Amino acid sequence: MHRVVIVGGGFGGLTAAQALRHAPVEVTVIDRRNFHLFQPLLYQVATGQLSPGEIASPIRNVVRNQKNTRVLLGEVEDFDVATREVILNDGSRVPYDSLIVATGSTHSYFGHDDWEKFAPGLKTIEDATEIRRRILFAFEAAEREPDHQKQREWLTFVLVGGGPTGVELAGALSEIANDTLKHDFRNINSRDAKIILVEGMERILQTFPEDLSKAAEKSLLKKCVQSRAHCHVTNITEDGVTLKTESGEEQHIACKTVLWAAGVRASKLGKVLSDKTGAQLTKNGGIIVEPDCTIKGHPEIYVIGDLQTFTYQTGKPLPGVAQTAIQAGTYVAKTIVRRLKNQAVKPFHYFDKGSLAVIGRLSGVADFHKLHLSGAPAWFVWLFIHIAYLIGFSNRIIVITQWAFNYLTQNRSARLITGIPFPLPDITDTANETRA
Amino acid sequence: MHRVVIVGGGFGGLTAAQALRHAPVEVTVIDRRNFHLFQPLLYQVATGQLSPGEIASPIRNVVRNQKNTRVLLGEVEDFDVATREVILNDGSRVPYDSLIVATGSTHSYFGHDDWEKFAPGLKTIEDATEIRRRILFAFEAAEREPDHQKQREWLTFVLVGGGPTGVELAGALSEIANDTLKHDFRNINSRDAKIILVEGMERILQTFPEDLSKAAEKSLLKKCVQSRAHCHVTNITEDGVTLKTESGEEQHIACKTVLWAAGVRASKLGKVLSDKTGAQLTKNGGIIVEPDCTIKGHPEIYVIGDLQTFTYQTGKPLPGVAQTAIQAGTYVAKTIVRRLKNQAVKPFHYFDKGSLAVIGRLSGVADFHKLHLSGAPAWFVWLFIHIAYLIGFSNRIIVITQWAFNYLTQNRSARLITGIPFPLPDITDTANETRA
Repeated sequence: MHRVVIVGGGFGGLTAAQALRHAPVEVTVIDRRNFHLFQPLLYQVATGQLSPGEIASPIRNVVRNQKNTRVLLGEVEDFDVATREVILNDGSRVPYDSLIVATGSTHSYFGHDDWEKFAPGLKTIEDATEIRRRILFAFEAAEREPDHQKQREWLTFVLVGGGPTGVELAGALSEIANDTLKHDFRNINSRDAKIILVEGMERILQTFPEDLSKAAEKSLLKKCVQSRAHCHVTNITEDGVTLKTESGEEQHIACKTVLWAAGVRASKLGKVLSDKTGAQLTKNGGIIVEPDCTIKGHPEIYVIGDLQTFTYQTGKPLPGVAQTAIQAGTYVAKTIVRRLKNQAVKPFHYFDKGSLAVIGRLSGVADFHKLHLSGAPAWFVWLFIHIAYLIGFSNRIIVITQWAFNYLTQNRSARLITGIPFPLPDITDTANETRA
Repeated sequence: MHRVVIVGGGFGGLTAAQALRHAPVEVTVIDRRNFHLFQPLLYQVATGQLSPGEIASPIRNVVRNQKNTRVLLGEVEDFDVATREVILNDGSRVPYDSLIVATGSTHSYFGHDDWEKFAPGLKTIEDATEIRRRILFAFEAAEREPDHQKQREWLTFVLVGGGPTGVELAGALSEIANDTLKHDFRNINSRDAKIILVEGMERILQTFPEDLSKAAEKSLLKKCVQSRAHCHVTNITEDGVTLKTESGEEQHIACKTVLWAAGVRASKLGKVLSDKTGAQLTKNGGIIVEPDCTIKGHPEIYVIGDLQTFTYQTGKPLPGVAQTAIQAGTYVAKTIVRRLKNQAVKPFHYFDKGSLAVIGRLSGVADFHKLHLSGAPAWFVWLFIHIAYLIGFSNRIIVITQWAFNYLTQNRSARLITGIPFPLPDITDTANETRA
């Protein structure tokens, strides 16, 4: 039986596995996590709206009735492209006839990896609970801080990166400060929180049409979020962020909480695969693929999702979103089956369904090419699409129920500060506080 | 204004704070966690039925409309009983006129603290996600293990302690192995898992009447859980558990997963308080209180909940359950108010409403003194009582929804292995695997 090995259980890998359900192949899905994560809602875990379990589905559970599919919890370390084997970190080898690599991406600090501990990014469940911890802890620390200046630093939040994730985090943070926590404190007014969204390019949401960027900026301003375009971060320390504005001026923002929603870099396995196959890499570590999503000279190795750089269609790489990964997952599954039947294969064609970003309650932007939506209509579209794509029927119902409560009560029930080492760090001592 | 300081936001402390809502006092609740945890359902987080956020309520949120109450996130380290101040770990002091200490309890390994890393107990949210990780990881490791003997060790689970927590964990583990995971693996049969519940006394659930112990044992046996009474644990290592049976024989059970549900010890603040006030401590570190729940010679210091040892009523300490803490919380709040009004104070009287333990779907035991229930009726009673006492309306609805899904589908959606350090530990290397 033809053996298909899929590395990565994200949108791309899992879609490919599901699409191979009835194919005459043996499928092995390898992931180092035991669950598929619904990334588009991860910011809601980071901001206390949802619990981790509500946006995760055990990979085994998703494919449990797929008799031709097995799942391995394991970390892939290397590939032996001559013998056609995947090598795990315990040395064990998994042979393949077709290989699908879909290991995604992680944050990039543009060469400043030392910024990471002061400005965590949002990719994993652990990132999300750490960001949640920092946000909630900042308000707690401000409540206990007698010094007015330090209190203001605890209540200042800087988000680096004005893409959809930065905008979503900024909007959610604003709702935490202005709605959720408004009755919770006695020494501080949570509404005094200052939220600053920093973007290096000329406008936030710069992959969206200009009118939608403007609409988003306006919505954020209504939520008391300052967005600052043309601003480059030049340094991040435990004392705050240093920016360089368009005019070249340096400016320091004193704050205790910085979140990173800027650069993205392909998973490390891209480099490993490129070393073994000679595949070309982009600056961000993405693998440049052929029109059929394979590596040049290796028609048995497919690369999809965020790890893939596909430029045939538009001359530019496709966007690094769930849609791209899902469509490529379906495409490569079909292609593998067609090749087994010796049928002709068409090149991959990405159909851009549009883009969405949510800002908060009844507020978002949606770009459906000819149709641009903002405000409540965009928010409703966002809501329905996210519910529809969320994996697992029970997750859907639970998320709808949580959202209904959050909406009606302006509350966020998943407001847990977890993972603190005991004893609790001294609140005035930020050096201790930056650990996970 | 009379200042009441409450240390601990568990059942006792939070009930006292809520009962003081309309009293002419200033209330400060201090806790090192920002949330109240609904302990009776913690085993469901440990076994993947519920997510942490679903059984936790932010303390601030619970008392947010109580204008006379403020909440401090902080760790109490000491008491100055002469100046009447609570001292936090950052050195700051919080003055009180009445003090309520309700810091609960933690596990006790009976002098074998080195067992903790091999056999975690279940007290905090972090404990629960760690236990969940170990249980789920054991099945994953077994799936990948080629050696048959080692595979069996991964599939053997020993629970130490046959009280309600041990029974609940054993029942849930059985359902994970026999129902939830039955279609998930290809190399192993999850139903081959061996679950052993070890109890030192003559029977499991020994605080319950004998007929209910028997019923519980029978229900567990139906679920393929072996319960072994009269067995003392003499050693726990990464290779398994050594027992001494009633006849004095030593027996080794080779297994990779051991969970601790045996001893309980009062919180460390009991010792601190005893040093400062001369209060008598029990062997487990509980503070022996006066009939009005105060410390002898300190009518302004109340001790309630698991930290309290109250022997006036029955000659024996009251049970360490939520009911005791809740009733004492209400009592001390009323007592403080009565004393402010110079009214006479009656001694604390505990009303034992009965005991419950759940074993699984449609299975449990309930002791309402004259009425003993087992099986489905006990389970329904358990269900309604736990929903009724769960704090937060939205938590209630979400938990009901999750339970309905779990019940109908036999699935457990919160099956996340989180907190693993990357790279994933080598599955055949247990030394790495024991860390959190």
